[in-house]
Amino acid sequence: MVQDEFVLEQLNQNGLVILQPRKGYRFSMDAILLARFPLVKEGFKIIDLGTGSGVIPLLLTTRAENLFIQGVEIQSGLAKLAKRNVEINNKQETIAILEQDMNSLPNEWNGQWDLVVSNPPYFKANAGKISLGERAIARHELKCTLEDVIRLGAKLLKPKGHLALVHRAERLPETINLLAKYKLNPCRLKIVHPRAEKNGELFLLEAVKGTSRPLNILPPLIIYDEEGPYS
Amino acid sequence: MVQDEFVLEQLNQNGLVILQPRKGYRFSMDAILLARFPLVKEGFKIIDLGTGSGVIPLLLTTRAENLFIQGVEIQSGLAKLAKRNVEINNKQETIAILEQDMNSLPNEWNGQWDLVVSNPPYFKANAGKISLGERAIARHELKCTLEDVIRLGAKLLKPKGHLALVHRAERLPETINLLAKYKLNPCRLKIVHPRAEKNGELFLLEAVKGTSRPLNILPPLIIYDEEGPYS
Repeated sequence: MVQDEFVLEQLNQNGLVILQPRKGYRFSMDAILLARFPLVKEGFKIIDLGTGSGVIPLLLTTRAENLFIQGVEIQSGLAKLAKRNVEINNKQETIAILEQDMNSLPNEWNGQWDLVVSNPPYFKANAGKISLGERAIARHELKCTLEDVIRLGAKLLKPKGHLALVHRAERLPETINLLAKYKLNPCRLKIVHPRAEKNGELFLLEAVKGTSRPLNILPPLIIYDEEGPYS
Repeated sequence: MVQDEFVLEQLNQNGLVILQPRKGYRFSMDAILLARFPLVKEGFKIIDLGTGSGVIPLLLTTRAENLFIQGVEIQSGLAKLAKRNVEINNKQETIAILEQDMNSLPNEWNGQWDLVVSNPPYFKANAGKISLGERAIARHELKCTLEDVIRLGAKLLKPKGHLALVHRAERLPETINLLAKYKLNPCRLKIVHPRAEKNGELFLLEAVKGTSRPLNILPPLIIYDEEGPYS
């Protein structure tokens, strides 16, 4: 690992830091929004499908006590980076990282998780110009699709467990249809708008397994208000 | 029609008026929001399923030139009231009202409409305490369900025609699933929040028949801002 290919950055106000490549794959604001979104209770077992550099597990550690968070990442370089980030932050007791295709997880993991989170690739494999490398696999559905994430989420969750996703606004209908296909019921939805008068760019959606609950559409998240970035 | 059972009210700034019962069924803000929402072009043939007192057809007349708007209403008293409202506003050339169950419309109407609109009953037939009368039928799925409206909308629309609905926030997932079932693609979604920091209460959704288009989630509609009602 050549020193100057990576930079160490402050991740939040709680002293978390993250090492990530100077170029190529870098975590986005979307991961931060997702880590803040779901309801997290003490003792939860959480799994992050496609954890990248481990940013979501790291941020989740501040949400409640006595968590166990499993990150799964198919890309070897990113999985190694995620492990390094767990060590740098001294979170080895809370976070485990597995280098693995999410489609090949151990059967014993089914039905074992309180919360499944994922910031999946946003673009169809055939959409737009696809470069090679870590960033492409994180952004395009080359190794996993939205349907993979939802199907696996449904399988991994305990009864009444929750799946929380962030995705692009335009894929909301497809997401809701896939959740219905796999018997997950949307219960919390938040639309993220860059400004109050702009279209939504992202949504955050939480769905519950095997129990019906009315959807709450939460107040919109406006990233920039008139006085600058929203906190 | 006993004079004092009805009141004549101003409907908008364009001189439209509406006669409606002093008690019982009265149109809501939701109908006004829906009439403003869909894209309406000159010459459109529009049908309003469950038109009540005709408020949506009346408001739609101001959206474009040379429209033809058909209101359908199963309840005899409301259909008569809607016809009276068309006359009072001198819109007989633009609006027709049919007293009819929307499930029994003429076959020749299929595939004939540019735009189908509906402010359907919001509550399941078995939900909550159901009173009798016009208001109950307008609010509860006693005579038609959300699935009826979407199935009929899909049948009535021309190819590439649009269906526009207003409904309660909690029924967004069900609506999106039903649209997929009947091959309608959500293309515009707007969430209505009473205040910026409150959960969404309603959604406005437009879907297109037989052509795929990415969903736009429009800026949220906030009914009251800090300085009072939003215009």
